[in-house]
Amino acid sequence: MSLLVTGSIGIDSVTTPHGSVDSVLGGTAVYFSFAATQYVPVRLVATVGDDFPDGFRTVLGSRRIDLAGLETRSGSSTFRWTGRYEGTMNEAETVDVSLNVLAEAAPKVPESFADSDTVFLANTHPTLQRELLSQISSPTLSVCDSMNLWIENERSSLVETLGLVTGVIFNDAEARQLTGQTNLIAAGEAILDFGPKFVMIKKGEHGVVLLTSNQVFALPAFPTKNVVDPTGAGDSFAGGVMGYLAERGTHDVAALRRAMVHGTVAASFTIEDFSLGRVRDLTRDQIDKRVSTFVDSLRLD
Amino acid sequence: MSLLVTGSIGIDSVTTPHGSVDSVLGGTAVYFSFAATQYVPVRLVATVGDDFPDGFRTVLGSRRIDLAGLETRSGSSTFRWTGRYEGTMNEAETVDVSLNVLAEAAPKVPESFADSDTVFLANTHPTLQRELLSQISSPTLSVCDSMNLWIENERSSLVETLGLVTGVIFNDAEARQLTGQTNLIAAGEAILDFGPKFVMIKKGEHGVVLLTSNQVFALPAFPTKNVVDPTGAGDSFAGGVMGYLAERGTHDVAALRRAMVHGTVAASFTIEDFSLGRVRDLTRDQIDKRVSTFVDSLRLD
Repeated sequence: MSLLVTGSIGIDSVTTPHGSVDSVLGGTAVYFSFAATQYVPVRLVATVGDDFPDGFRTVLGSRRIDLAGLETRSGSSTFRWTGRYEGTMNEAETVDVSLNVLAEAAPKVPESFADSDTVFLANTHPTLQRELLSQISSPTLSVCDSMNLWIENERSSLVETLGLVTGVIFNDAEARQLTGQTNLIAAGEAILDFGPKFVMIKKGEHGVVLLTSNQVFALPAFPTKNVVDPTGAGDSFAGGVMGYLAERGTHDVAALRRAMVHGTVAASFTIEDFSLGRVRDLTRDQIDKRVSTFVDSLRLD
Repeated sequence: MSLLVTGSIGIDSVTTPHGSVDSVLGGTAVYFSFAATQYVPVRLVATVGDDFPDGFRTVLGSRRIDLAGLETRSGSSTFRWTGRYEGTMNEAETVDVSLNVLAEAAPKVPESFADSDTVFLANTHPTLQRELLSQISSPTLSVCDSMNLWIENERSSLVETLGLVTGVIFNDAEARQLTGQTNLIAAGEAILDFGPKFVMIKKGEHGVVLLTSNQVFALPAFPTKNVVDPTGAGDSFAGGVMGYLAERGTHDVAALRRAMVHGTVAASFTIEDFSLGRVRDLTRDQIDKRVSTFVDSLRLD
């Protein structure tokens, strides 16, 4: 299976109770790709400015990431985000954000990527998500994320996007905001009414819930006390989910459930260090061992 | 097995986004008993005032509840609580509380109850919890709850109680407050250091986590959108857990995990109506059916 992701590449500065890092590699598409390439190669569609450090390019090049869709836009600057987490670290506070190249024209999907069968549209303007999706000839599985900004300001466009994708991965606040439902099961059902076949609602340290037309599946987070920096947890989750589904070549309910385990484990590694510190040298064997530990911890008997 | 519970009996007035009720039967020991009597008879140790309505006594009498330890104190008034839930209903706001008889001397454990092998000490002053526990000759399994008031003002007494019980059922805020740990796994481990063999940390709509010396088990809540009134959810959870363990006659880790499923299902029924509306006529068959549905929803394949 061929897996395409389109999303942001960022230069992040992050402070948590465990320390801080300055100008490290981040962004939705990056965290996604580091998780997903544990399963299948990834086709990356994204833009950076000409300030994008060579060292970061080398890091991206160290994985099975096809960079044919990575556009370096001359005269533009790379997306930058400065954030802070406090207390239970359940929510990021954005201290500073410079959209830079993300506020310009969207990247183009290279022709060589048009035959991708699995697509993840990370959070961006929902109209751009549709524009990107329209450049893929016949995806078998397409999944999108979003954020509060678009839910608030571009609701009808987002609803149109939801009508085109196979699945949705939202966090709890987004699901509630979009639907006006405080109860997450009711919120999930309301999202399914927009068209997607499944919705996964991420609840941070409280795990994730899957809804399909006739099933609800709830999975707790991987129990850990080793949380250094939650940045990228949600994108790593999506990367683990989509990578696993692409590898398995199906997205029936059994595969979706198992994919959520892999997504959860991907996120559990990401949060153990700043930036890509923990996942950069992570092996598939380490992932599979933790999947096995996690599955054991879920057994009822 | 003989199961004893000591806790409050209250007259509650509750407002939620779904309506309100005035002066209904409530209290920790009541919700506990309605859940636990689905599994085994319950020995109740509690006090009420002489204002306690006969109708409520009839409701209690309709279950397998031995009322030999229910003291009606002449000249005293029954505990009253007025509370309100808003939004996601994750937290109760206490509008008004009158401790009344709860502020007086603790109830005595009748001699006929001294041979109880399973004991649940619902939330009360930790010194009273020890006094009550000391009246049971040789319990096989003793579990306690607590609340923010005692954690803040009677910490050393509470720690002494924790050194005497087999297990602890706390909610997430209590676990964090007692240990100063924001991470719940770290908080659970710190509680185990005080002596109990296991700790269950309730997270409301996000489920519950079990910690023993060498295992962590996480269980999501029963996925429901039918939440009318969360009052009594935690006590119903404890009742389902303890009732199941008493019926099964063991509290090894496998039993504890399965007990949490029963506790979760007990709570899921309680919150579907105000007061005991939903659980009053609930059958064991209905419980077992939902347990089965819940277990199915947790399967990975």
